[in-house]
Amino acid sequence: MHRLIRALAAFAREVPDGPWCVALSGGPDSLALAAAAARSRPTAALIVDHRLQPGSAGVASNAAEQASRLGCESAQVLTVSVGADGGPEAAARAARYAALEQARAGRPVLLGHTLDDQAETVLLGLARGSGPRSIAGMRPWAPPWGRPLLGLRRADTEAACAELGLDPWRDPHNSDPRFTRVRLRDEVLPLLEDVLGGGVAAALARTATALQEDGDALDALAETVDVEDQPQVTVFFGLPTAVRRRALRRWLLRCGAHRLTDEQLRAVDALVTDWRGQGGVAVGGAGPRERLFAERRDGRLRLRIEPV
Amino acid sequence: MHRLIRALAAFAREVPDGPWCVALSGGPDSLALAAAAARSRPTAALIVDHRLQPGSAGVASNAAEQASRLGCESAQVLTVSVGADGGPEAAARAARYAALEQARAGRPVLLGHTLDDQAETVLLGLARGSGPRSIAGMRPWAPPWGRPLLGLRRADTEAACAELGLDPWRDPHNSDPRFTRVRLRDEVLPLLEDVLGGGVAAALARTATALQEDGDALDALAETVDVEDQPQVTVFFGLPTAVRRRALRRWLLRCGAHRLTDEQLRAVDALVTDWRGQGGVAVGGAGPRERLFAERRDGRLRLRIEPV
Repeated sequence: MHRLIRALAAFAREVPDGPWCVALSGGPDSLALAAAAARSRPTAALIVDHRLQPGSAGVASNAAEQASRLGCESAQVLTVSVGADGGPEAAARAARYAALEQARAGRPVLLGHTLDDQAETVLLGLARGSGPRSIAGMRPWAPPWGRPLLGLRRADTEAACAELGLDPWRDPHNSDPRFTRVRLRDEVLPLLEDVLGGGVAAALARTATALQEDGDALDALAETVDVEDQPQVTVFFGLPTAVRRRALRRWLLRCGAHRLTDEQLRAVDALVTDWRGQGGVAVGGAGPRERLFAERRDGRLRLRIEPV
Repeated sequence: MHRLIRALAAFAREVPDGPWCVALSGGPDSLALAAAAARSRPTAALIVDHRLQPGSAGVASNAAEQASRLGCESAQVLTVSVGADGGPEAAARAARYAALEQARAGRPVLLGHTLDDQAETVLLGLARGSGPRSIAGMRPWAPPWGRPLLGLRRADTEAACAELGLDPWRDPHNSDPRFTRVRLRDEVLPLLEDVLGGGVAAALARTATALQEDGDALDALAETVDVEDQPQVTVFFGLPTAVRRRALRRWLLRCGAHRLTDEQLRAVDALVTDWRGQGGVAVGGAGPRERLFAERRDGRLRLRIEPV
């Protein structure tokens, strides 16, 4: 418990004064977090009931009860309906964050992610291969979301629960190998630790932090590039590749592109740096019966919508 | 073979005119590389005999013979003595590169690394957690070393060898699970491909390229910071974290530090950004009976050597 209290104290220095919320699943990480958070500031527990498993309402009300006993000032169960968009994990996540966003009422929301979660997130991002951004992992403070436990291990939260005499909920999804994250945790990371002689989770987390810092510096540089809605390509000349790509990325997102892949971004970049009169580059983001293209015409870039 | 010839043609555009060398082990990657390279420019094969395995001289002379048949203008066997510094893999690598450096006589040296090697390198670096630099992998052209096959798969070089009727050497070290890289290749990457649904090697390689670009931009920025031998800490104020760390790293390396870890760099950084009167930070690089410390005194950083 000592480590958690210290982590919360350090985190509290970075966050505006006032009460905060804790997203509580009833599992060991968030339960230990709620206990430590409540010792540091007035804490509201927000419990999302995804209604995906039988008995989920009981799990939620049990978590709410534990929150009150741990010193939380309030405990609120948020019942949500999970859709199917992007797969079961992504859909549950979207529903959860939307409910938390609505219930937080201006307060920061603390999440129980640990160093082990961070390591899994980095590995997941690797597979996407969409550049350094996808392996930079989660940030300790991305308002309104706070992750005070990113420097601690799952073993620390387990120990805290034992110390407090708590019996945390064990989500069966956390050992279901149909989930990619579960297999990363149970198969890939232990094998990596064995092959590389240990310390892998901490190394992955360190890498994430360094990549966040690099990304911040480059993003800040890219923001100083003044890009109009239909920018002249000369605006991008002379910039370092990493800055030019980020400036192009910002422009594309601002103009409505989304789910941009590394490949698409490189193809748009080629409109600037390797111009051979090529056609438009399809990028995601238009409506269901339209397609979005980035193209170069008369020395300017622009986005064009085309019916399918 | 077609893919290799195209890769070599693209690579040749980046490299100064004239003859080049190929580092040839006799394995499928370097054999296919030698064949493709010799079709593009006058090529000298350099074969390093590490004398680590019985029969290594025979393997080397066989490789030299194949090189001549593949159209290389010369084939030279370099016999080396491998020390023990840094472990068997690192020692063999150091001896190999030293011999190649000596024999290349001003010419570029092409190496047979493929996308699969790049993926392994990224994974190794990730697990070490020594920052983005260590996961940026190998560069296609870091004079005098060239890697024209970084965009191709091992399957491509195998196919080229089959097409040419070659019977490449199979290094038993490449299937010896005592080597970390072998276990990454044979155990970790296949498991990751399975868990993450494929495309992992290519994603790792793409990540490496993006990190090289990011690193280049940040290194260039750090080089614009004017750092004296005993710089005032104020020189580092106001810089983005990623740039400040790189400027500090350059200063440390210039002043004789080496094998700098991420942890050491962060501790030196804290002398600038989190000054609480703390003592010197031990960094590697002094002689056998000395220790090197980075310290802050009177608002300046300096390196101090201390006898052990």
